Amino acid sequence: MSTTIDITEETSAVAKGKAPLIATTTYSDGSKGNIKTKGAAAATAATGYKKGIAIFDFLLRLGAIVAALAAAGTMGSSEQTLPFFTQFFQFRASYDDLPTFQFFVIAMSIVGGYLVLSLPFSIVLIIRPSAVAPKMLLVALDIVALTLNTAAGGAAAAVVYLAHNGNSSANWLAICQQFGDFCQKVSGAVVASFISAVALVFLVVLSGFALRRH
Amino acid sequence: MSTTIDITEETSAVAKGKAPLIATTTYSDGSKGNIKTKGAAAATAATGYKKGIAIFDFLLRLGAIVAALAAAGTMGSSEQTLPFFTQFFQFRASYDDLPTFQFFVIAMSIVGGYLVLSLPFSIVLIIRPSAVAPKMLLVALDIVALTLNTAAGGAAAAVVYLAHNGNSSANWLAICQQFGDFCQKVSGAVVASFISAVALVFLVVLSGFALRRH
Repeated sequence: MSTTIDITEETSAVAKGKAPLIATTTYSDGSKGNIKTKGAAAATAATGYKKGIAIFDFLLRLGAIVAALAAAGTMGSSEQTLPFFTQFFQFRASYDDLPTFQFFVIAMSIVGGYLVLSLPFSIVLIIRPSAVAPKMLLVALDIVALTLNTAAGGAAAAVVYLAHNGNSSANWLAICQQFGDFCQKVSGAVVASFISAVALVFLVVLSGFALRRH
Repeated sequence: MSTTIDITEETSAVAKGKAPLIATTTYSDGSKGNIKTKGAAAATAATGYKKGIAIFDFLLRLGAIVAALAAAGTMGSSEQTLPFFTQFFQFRASYDDLPTFQFFVIAMSIVGGYLVLSLPFSIVLIIRPSAVAPKMLLVALDIVALTLNTAAGGAAAAVVYLAHNGNSSANWLAICQQFGDFCQKVSGAVVASFISAVALVFLVVLSGFALRRH
């Protein structure tokens, strides 16, 4: 059994020279040599698509860094001292009175730190959009960061809710009536952590799309 | 320019007939026809690998269902009535006194329900390990379920911690001294939700491995 494939010099020249520039017109002449042209054009399109995703990934990552560090910073700096005091006691609220808020500060700092460290990998993916290894690494660690972020945000939100509303069954009184500024800062930090979580969800989904087409 | 590819009848017969059975020995004769053989053997190995992952995915999913539904059920049935009461008031604790626990029950029921509905897709992947579309769907929804599970678990854990330890700064007293049985059930539910979260993490990682080799 013998198969012969003829590739003329002319179509080879078209494939190498003009094809990526006028990709739609070269398909119409129907010679076999153009399968190569078509493949090259598709590869160029896929690379451009991945490069666009990589740039968007980088920008989204910058936004997530701002949100995560804002959450950690706002929570970390939240304290309020009431302007009245008794002889033995000064009324003061700080994030480290509540272990949940301490966890929140630590977790959001880790997420923010990870996101900063992930920027170089994101830049590598802009330069080389087809690299699979850094993409896999980023997706895996993004999911870990998303989980940590969600746990911290959910836990802090539960405590902030109690601080705002209290609970009559457990006889826990709302402390936000006294510590209004403290509660505002803490609530802001929780909102920032949710923004960072949403950004991380989009990052994971984007990376999924980028991996889908390799 | 002209290229000729010769494929002899003999190597073709080897490729079709014996090759998948004695894959290691056929590589050694070095003829060009064996490229096809090598590809077929590698594809068979990859399919077996994927089938193994799909079966493990199914078993892990069963475990996650048990954990998630146990978490929702335990929390949903947690209530305790103290054996003493005043003329106007009976001391009673239930999960729906605390909005966080209500959220926990709803979220864990959704996660459990999703996991049950995902079983048919997991079975499809055992039968056809190379199908990409159901795999992508499962990974995406697994990540959503993981996030929901983590948020519910984190929020409930924060409130359970307060119930056990109270908080002197906010003047919230520990209620577990009175409602011991209630607290034990609620803590058990939180632990079950963490087990389900760990199972979901492994499910996502496994699916990542399965998608890596397509």
